[in-house]
Amino acid sequence: MNFLEETIIKQGMVKEGNVLKVDSFLNHQMDIALFELMGAEWKKRFADKKITKILTIEASGIGIACIAAQNFGVPVVFAKKSKSINLEGEMYTAEVESFTHKKINTIIVAKKFLSPDDHVLIIDDFLANGCALQGLIGIVQSAGATVEGIGIAVEKGFQAGGQIIRNMGYQLESLAIVDSMNAETGEVFFREQ
Amino acid sequence: MNFLEETIIKQGMVKEGNVLKVDSFLNHQMDIALFELMGAEWKKRFADKKITKILTIEASGIGIACIAAQNFGVPVVFAKKSKSINLEGEMYTAEVESFTHKKINTIIVAKKFLSPDDHVLIIDDFLANGCALQGLIGIVQSAGATVEGIGIAVEKGFQAGGQIIRNMGYQLESLAIVDSMNAETGEVFFREQ
Repeated sequence: MNFLEETIIKQGMVKEGNVLKVDSFLNHQMDIALFELMGAEWKKRFADKKITKILTIEASGIGIACIAAQNFGVPVVFAKKSKSINLEGEMYTAEVESFTHKKINTIIVAKKFLSPDDHVLIIDDFLANGCALQGLIGIVQSAGATVEGIGIAVEKGFQAGGQIIRNMGYQLESLAIVDSMNAETGEVFFREQ
Repeated sequence: MNFLEETIIKQGMVKEGNVLKVDSFLNHQMDIALFELMGAEWKKRFADKKITKILTIEASGIGIACIAAQNFGVPVVFAKKSKSINLEGEMYTAEVESFTHKKINTIIVAKKFLSPDDHVLIIDDFLANGCALQGLIGIVQSAGATVEGIGIAVEKGFQAGGQIIRNMGYQLESLAIVDSMNAETGEVFFREQ
C-alpha cells in the first residue's frame, strides 16, 4: 500500500451508497504534508513530460494542484464553476454534470490562460464517472493545447470514468484506485498498481 | 514597494467601478512562486504566534492558504459556500454577503475540524467590505477557538472591511493595501506600510 492508500484506510470513512469520505485530509481539511508526497509522486510518474501548466477545477482540486505545481515549476489555472456564464473577456466553457450535487455546471477558463503552446497536466482530487475530467480535457482541446497527463488522488475504479479516460489514450495516474468498499465493515479495497 | 505590490503594478488591471483584476496571478491563474513569497512573509509577520490551523474560504483562498501552511506546518480547512445547508454531521455556519456576485451565501465548516484548542490563522485573497472575513471569524468563535491573526493578499483600503477588522482588535496583515485606483490611467496607489 502506498502513503495515500494508507491514509484512506486510517482516516477515510465508507458511507452507504459507495460514498468515501476523505474530508479529514483531502477535500475539507487538507493535509499539506500528504499533498507534498502526492506532488512528488506525480512528478515521478510524469518525469518524462514537459509540463507548462497545471489545470484543475474548483474547489477541492486547487490545494492539491498548487502543491503539485511546486514540483513542476509551473502556474496553476483553476476552472471555475458558473451557472451564469459571464463572458467578459473570452472564456472556454464546458458542461459538467456533478455526481455529488446532481446538477449541471458550466465550467469556464479564461482564454488568455491557455494557449496552443501549453502542455497541460490536469490534476483533481476525485475521479468517478469522469464528467469533470472530460470537461477539463475539452477545454484544453478548445485551446489547441496538449493534455500531457492526468493526475488524480482517488479514483473510484468501480465507476466508468477511469476506463473511459484510459481508452481515450491519456496517461492517467491515480494515486489510489478503489475497487470496492464495504459500508458495513468500513473496508476499502484497492486495485494493485 | 514589496513583491506583491510590484506584481499588481505589472500584471493587475484596473477596471471601472473600483475593480482590480488580478486573475493572471492570484485568483484564476495562480503564480505559485509568488504564493511562496506571500507565505514566507506571513510567517515573518506572525512569527510570535502559535498557529495550529489555517482557515480559508473556497475557492480562491485555497491555493494561497495551502502554500502558506507549509511555513506553519499545519493543516488547512476551507469553508464551503452552500446555498442548501447539508447538515450531515454537524456544521458551523455563517451568512456571508458576496460583493462580487451580489447574493448571500451560507458558509459552512464541519465542527470536527475546529476545536477550542485551535489557534487559527485566517487566510484569504481579498478583503473589501469584510463580510467573508467576519463570517470566518464567527465560525472560529462558534468553535471556541482563537483567531491568532488574519493574512490577506490584497486589501481594498478604500472599503470598510480592514478598518472594521482592525477595530475588533485582530492582527490583520494585508500584503498590499490599495488606497485608490484610476481606471482611466490604470494606476494603483498603495498605502505605505
